[in-house]
Amino acid sequence: MFENVNKTPLEDIGEFGLIDRIKSSVKIHHNQTLLGIGDDAAVLNPEQKHVVVTTDMLVEGIHFDLRYMPLKFLGYKSVAVNISDILAMNATPFQITCSLAVSNRFSVEAIEELYEGIHRACDAYKVDLVGGDTTSSVTGMVISITAIGLVNPEEWVGRFGAKNGDLICVTGNLGAAYAGLQILEREKKIFLENPGVQPDLDGYDYVVERQLKPEPRADMIRQLHELAIKPSSMIDISDGLASELLHLCKQSACGCRIDAEKIPIDTHTWKVAEDLNLQAITMALYGGEDYELLMTIRQEDFEQARMISDLHVIGYMTDDIGNCHVIDSQNQLHPITASGWDTFRSQSKD
Amino acid sequence: MFENVNKTPLEDIGEFGLIDRIKSSVKIHHNQTLLGIGDDAAVLNPEQKHVVVTTDMLVEGIHFDLRYMPLKFLGYKSVAVNISDILAMNATPFQITCSLAVSNRFSVEAIEELYEGIHRACDAYKVDLVGGDTTSSVTGMVISITAIGLVNPEEWVGRFGAKNGDLICVTGNLGAAYAGLQILEREKKIFLENPGVQPDLDGYDYVVERQLKPEPRADMIRQLHELAIKPSSMIDISDGLASELLHLCKQSACGCRIDAEKIPIDTHTWKVAEDLNLQAITMALYGGEDYELLMTIRQEDFEQARMISDLHVIGYMTDDIGNCHVIDSQNQLHPITASGWDTFRSQSKD
Repeated sequence: MFENVNKTPLEDIGEFGLIDRIKSSVKIHHNQTLLGIGDDAAVLNPEQKHVVVTTDMLVEGIHFDLRYMPLKFLGYKSVAVNISDILAMNATPFQITCSLAVSNRFSVEAIEELYEGIHRACDAYKVDLVGGDTTSSVTGMVISITAIGLVNPEEWVGRFGAKNGDLICVTGNLGAAYAGLQILEREKKIFLENPGVQPDLDGYDYVVERQLKPEPRADMIRQLHELAIKPSSMIDISDGLASELLHLCKQSACGCRIDAEKIPIDTHTWKVAEDLNLQAITMALYGGEDYELLMTIRQEDFEQARMISDLHVIGYMTDDIGNCHVIDSQNQLHPITASGWDTFRSQSKD
Repeated sequence: MFENVNKTPLEDIGEFGLIDRIKSSVKIHHNQTLLGIGDDAAVLNPEQKHVVVTTDMLVEGIHFDLRYMPLKFLGYKSVAVNISDILAMNATPFQITCSLAVSNRFSVEAIEELYEGIHRACDAYKVDLVGGDTTSSVTGMVISITAIGLVNPEEWVGRFGAKNGDLICVTGNLGAAYAGLQILEREKKIFLENPGVQPDLDGYDYVVERQLKPEPRADMIRQLHELAIKPSSMIDISDGLASELLHLCKQSACGCRIDAEKIPIDTHTWKVAEDLNLQAITMALYGGEDYELLMTIRQEDFEQARMISDLHVIGYMTDDIGNCHVIDSQNQLHPITASGWDTFRSQSKD
């Protein structure tokens, strides 16, 4: 579906040549970045703050399909998912490193397109690319990104601080990224059966963009900070709401109850559910990849939290450890089970 | 050559099950590690110091061959090469994250063996495993490690500070890891031609261990610190002495001259050179993977530096930018060229 016009073989410029090219397109945003790409390691000045570190690996054929994922978007998304983890600690992202393994089937131009996406995400979230590693692989592409953030010592938030009665909130809306994936998978199937047909994504732009170009909620962390609200626990929604809720409950030794009708779902997601004969609520609970934030806040912070327009209360924590339920419009309780994204299990099912 | 007896399929325990197993075997060495594995990110307290970050990706079939690299050694080496980069900044390693992509051909026991090596290196170098990502791959294994170190603000050393007249020093001895690789490759070839034959590594233990289990020179950084010697530039020797010298010269805007006879080469390396009809000096210059340190020191630090038994002066920096030479026993000058490890080029040659 996507193709590069220019194809300079990677071996023409070699590893150091590629590093030089990447280095020349890097922009540094922070004084805290003392030394970036080009030495044995980067040097950062944390300025009395605590350092937050996260890492994520994306593997071709497991996490992304280059038949419908343009390299620029892949680069952007690889950075975004790591930034999302930093934000979920209530921290501010400052730097990333990016390691890349690519086979010779990728051209220099293809790698540069990937890096264009990486640089765009770095610009959008004011993050400095400070290091990495570029190597060849036998087959396929593997991207490993580490993100580093800073947070005031007393302000970081883990998954373990929720208490009985805390309100459960999510940002934005859920299920859209999964809806986008279903549309892309449908178009891929049509394309594979009939390569002449161009993908028809009309009317699906929103959900497709949610899948291809997630935007981690740096704006939410900023607003919480401005309103002096420190969530009692927080996690980003990468594996689906259900899976993340179970993490918060397990690590906080709580149970929870959420209201199905309060889970924010976009009209475009409802439309896809209708078109593909899927349940929107299931997509929101188990879909994953929305990179919204799930957090718990103290009841006394509720009035302040209402000032944030895109933050939605969907339920509350209980002291009934391990009992996690969603209540539907008929007042029926359904247990929340872990059916999030698990790469080993999903691979074995295929 | 190596095989696992127990083979529990990875999908039996899933991604979260694997993370739990890894988490349970982690030992934390530092108070600076406030939060480790199990949240969106790790939290570290840098305590007024600067933070040093490096990352390295190892790809099966490119960087390692599981036919002669036992998984335990692979785990150890993956950590060691990153620690070496932190040390080369004159910093102390504190934490690592480890991301792993493995196909279903690897069993749970195989992954645990790999992690046993990782934990051993963490123990040996007092480093905390604080995070990572475990995912499946379509084929083969990819390991991506990020190491984090701390350094007093005024003490970090880059590649760029060398000046005319500074003395060039290397630690330990060079070429041994490459010699070990040649022996392992020879035995692999024999094994492939005749699978009944057991590898004969008799008398080659030292060089084979240098290849399989490199030990980064934390002891050297400690000694330099105790003697209050701050190198003017430093780099670890991963790609071979020649390649690293060119990096120091380029980034410090210097030239250099080194004495071939002063390059430390172990007697075991000489023996391999003789057995395989190779040149020991070439192995030392271009072999790579020794993970020794190459540094420049000011002349006024020379007397102090002599107290360090395993540190060897091999030449000096000049102001003749870009002119890098090695002088042989006949007083002949040979230009040093870049023929270090370059994965793209070496792949294209194969």
